[in-house]
Amino acid sequence: MSARKRVSLTVQPLIVQKFGGTSMGSIERIKSAAARALATQRDGHRVVVIVSAMSGETNRLLQLAKDVAPIPSTREMDALAATGEQVSSALMAIAIQSLGGRARSFTGQQMKILTDSAFTKARIKTIDAGRVLSSVEDGEIAVVAGFQGVDDEGNITTLGRGGSDTSAVAIAAAIQSGLNEKVVCEIYTDVDGVYTTDPNVCPTAKKIERISYEEMLELASLGAKVLQIRSVEMAMKYGVPVHVRSSFSSAPGTMVTGEGALEGVVVTGVAYDKGEARVMLVGVLDKPGVVAQIFGDLARENVSVDMIIQNLPSAGAGDAASRTDVTFTVAKTDLARVRGVIDTVGSNVSALGVRYDEDIVKVSIVGLGMRSHAGVAAKMFRILADEGINIQAISTSEIKVSCLVATKYTELAVRSLHDGFALGAEAREEHGGA
Amino acid sequence: MSARKRVSLTVQPLIVQKFGGTSMGSIERIKSAAARALATQRDGHRVVVIVSAMSGETNRLLQLAKDVAPIPSTREMDALAATGEQVSSALMAIAIQSLGGRARSFTGQQMKILTDSAFTKARIKTIDAGRVLSSVEDGEIAVVAGFQGVDDEGNITTLGRGGSDTSAVAIAAAIQSGLNEKVVCEIYTDVDGVYTTDPNVCPTAKKIERISYEEMLELASLGAKVLQIRSVEMAMKYGVPVHVRSSFSSAPGTMVTGEGALEGVVVTGVAYDKGEARVMLVGVLDKPGVVAQIFGDLARENVSVDMIIQNLPSAGAGDAASRTDVTFTVAKTDLARVRGVIDTVGSNVSALGVRYDEDIVKVSIVGLGMRSHAGVAAKMFRILADEGINIQAISTSEIKVSCLVATKYTELAVRSLHDGFALGAEAREEHGGA
Repeated sequence: MSARKRVSLTVQPLIVQKFGGTSMGSIERIKSAAARALATQRDGHRVVVIVSAMSGETNRLLQLAKDVAPIPSTREMDALAATGEQVSSALMAIAIQSLGGRARSFTGQQMKILTDSAFTKARIKTIDAGRVLSSVEDGEIAVVAGFQGVDDEGNITTLGRGGSDTSAVAIAAAIQSGLNEKVVCEIYTDVDGVYTTDPNVCPTAKKIERISYEEMLELASLGAKVLQIRSVEMAMKYGVPVHVRSSFSSAPGTMVTGEGALEGVVVTGVAYDKGEARVMLVGVLDKPGVVAQIFGDLARENVSVDMIIQNLPSAGAGDAASRTDVTFTVAKTDLARVRGVIDTVGSNVSALGVRYDEDIVKVSIVGLGMRSHAGVAAKMFRILADEGINIQAISTSEIKVSCLVATKYTELAVRSLHDGFALGAEAREEHGGA
Repeated sequence: MSARKRVSLTVQPLIVQKFGGTSMGSIERIKSAAARALATQRDGHRVVVIVSAMSGETNRLLQLAKDVAPIPSTREMDALAATGEQVSSALMAIAIQSLGGRARSFTGQQMKILTDSAFTKARIKTIDAGRVLSSVEDGEIAVVAGFQGVDDEGNITTLGRGGSDTSAVAIAAAIQSGLNEKVVCEIYTDVDGVYTTDPNVCPTAKKIERISYEEMLELASLGAKVLQIRSVEMAMKYGVPVHVRSSFSSAPGTMVTGEGALEGVVVTGVAYDKGEARVMLVGVLDKPGVVAQIFGDLARENVSVDMIIQNLPSAGAGDAASRTDVTFTVAKTDLARVRGVIDTVGSNVSALGVRYDEDIVKVSIVGLGMRSHAGVAAKMFRILADEGINIQAISTSEIKVSCLVATKYTELAVRSLHDGFALGAEAREEHGGA
């Protein structure tokens, strides 16, 4: 009795709900999202809704701009693109009202989401949560146009693709700070959560119930498209719990928090990324400054390098004539620029040869549990070896081990690692018991 | 020589150019409008451009709202509809830039077009011309989203249909006041000016070169759709010269100013309006307060009454039993509500009967010259009589005479008045000489 009483007296947390383009894809879906927001409010939560543009709308607007000029001004592109979310926010407010709720839409400008002036990829500086807070305290559902802000001079800015996730987390953080209480940020998407691996590759992939920010960051950077990296970074920085869940069901999704999975789970997920190419500089002179020159030149060309592996020279280190091999990976889309740099720098550092390989995939295991469990990497190598998969390069971080293998092994590698670390089996048992 | 020198030293006036939905109907048309703005700037003018939404866009947006809810909130309708002009303003700025010009778009909010909070039909209170002025002084073409503003609380408002004309004139007025110099407001539309009458009805109709605000107001209220009444009222109030011209040609259109046509022109145009219905209360008791009661009740039902004609009673005025007939016209669309009111009030004022007639047209002649020329109305009645057209009711103002006639006479009445007042003949002569 007393426990129940205490529950009923507890103030329910404010919930920020972000609906992406798919959730805003049609009038019916907008109404369904509105119904969900309203149901959440009727459960006793204060609700702030963040919306993306209706699916396809941002592309339509940017195509209009490109039809007018091949390279439109970024300031005007932002003024144009921001209308997509403004339309969504008004329609969402209308949908909530039509279901008997009270709602009010806010643009980035009205909400005073202050950003820098880097049009098309602006960064949020400050958010004034006051306006939406007085709206929700007043019993309304505040509906905020995602993806957009305004700079010091009042110019409309956008946060770049996927920016609505960032808007949602940033607004949740601002509200959390303004109210001095925990706020939950729900991200509604067309998948029902974060999976242990790509279900298209591995049918036994299971939904992860809880995952830490760090793991989510690694998975996102490895190509899991559920959440934008920037939004996860921001959630981690401000300690905003993020609940990734499906627009099309009421089942819980994946909770991204500071804590992550239960003790004992060593590997949380298996990811793969076919978007990288391997570059190998053979027989580079092993002397100070050589590696710095190679990667300095690549950085000046704005090429992001992912894995870097430098083998020890076969001769003794420091010998004048000793040589080493330097291998690194870059995005396949950057390969043309990389060739330009390497053609020049390769001879400067007296490399004996250069090899490019696009026929590779990066397969990774991610898990906070690795920190305290020895032998995880060794187990990964063993699993791959047992399948006859040759590992071309290895890179590790505190919570991740990545291996480059030939593209043809993608599915085999992912499935064997997923099974080998018992990710799928656990899933079936847990769900069977629930 | 000295005259030419003086001209070249004169600072060219700032020009506000407003492009309507048709002028913004496609990428090609937007580019063509941009080229015109740029050519105007290259002629030495500072240029401010006001844009409407692309044709069809406002309807598309409002339909979206209606698909979500039968009666959407007007605040949200405005937030939604305002995006149409925001898109146009960004595309126009991009188009000007693509042609080598410099341009910057402004929303109503950025431009600080302060309105009241009457969503969907807001009225402009103040405009801060500072932002566009610093833009044009900087060599840019300032592109302002028409039709929209912002209220004291930062809510987005719209000015109602045709509001972009009002935006243009109001912005021209604000700039005129800010610069303390005359500004010209050019309204680009799909017709090439204001005509002496509807060219579809009367092939000899000619374009009017100059017309006064008062005449334009009468013509607009009589159904000439070229300019919105509110924008003409505002132009008159602030003395803004308005040049109505075609998006598709560089020929001069019609100049709407304080002066109007040359001396000697008595009638400027002939208009007709098929949108009214006639209501006749027969045998109303002729005593004080009766008419006040009828029209008071209509006003409470929000019915606008146009013409009101009360004949003298056939018996001596003031007799207890004397009766009179009261005739008035209302919009046909209001007729259902009028019947409701009259059914009640008719018996209260002891009318002997009520007659409704929808088969009527109001034909009007308009001209500032009437003020100083006697016999204009008489000439109108004579022209109609000569054609065998029976006049059912007459109403006059200082610069207008309107007659109700049967609908079947519309074309005959318009053409005979147009010819009778020599509007077409003059046109051909003037154009022949030009």
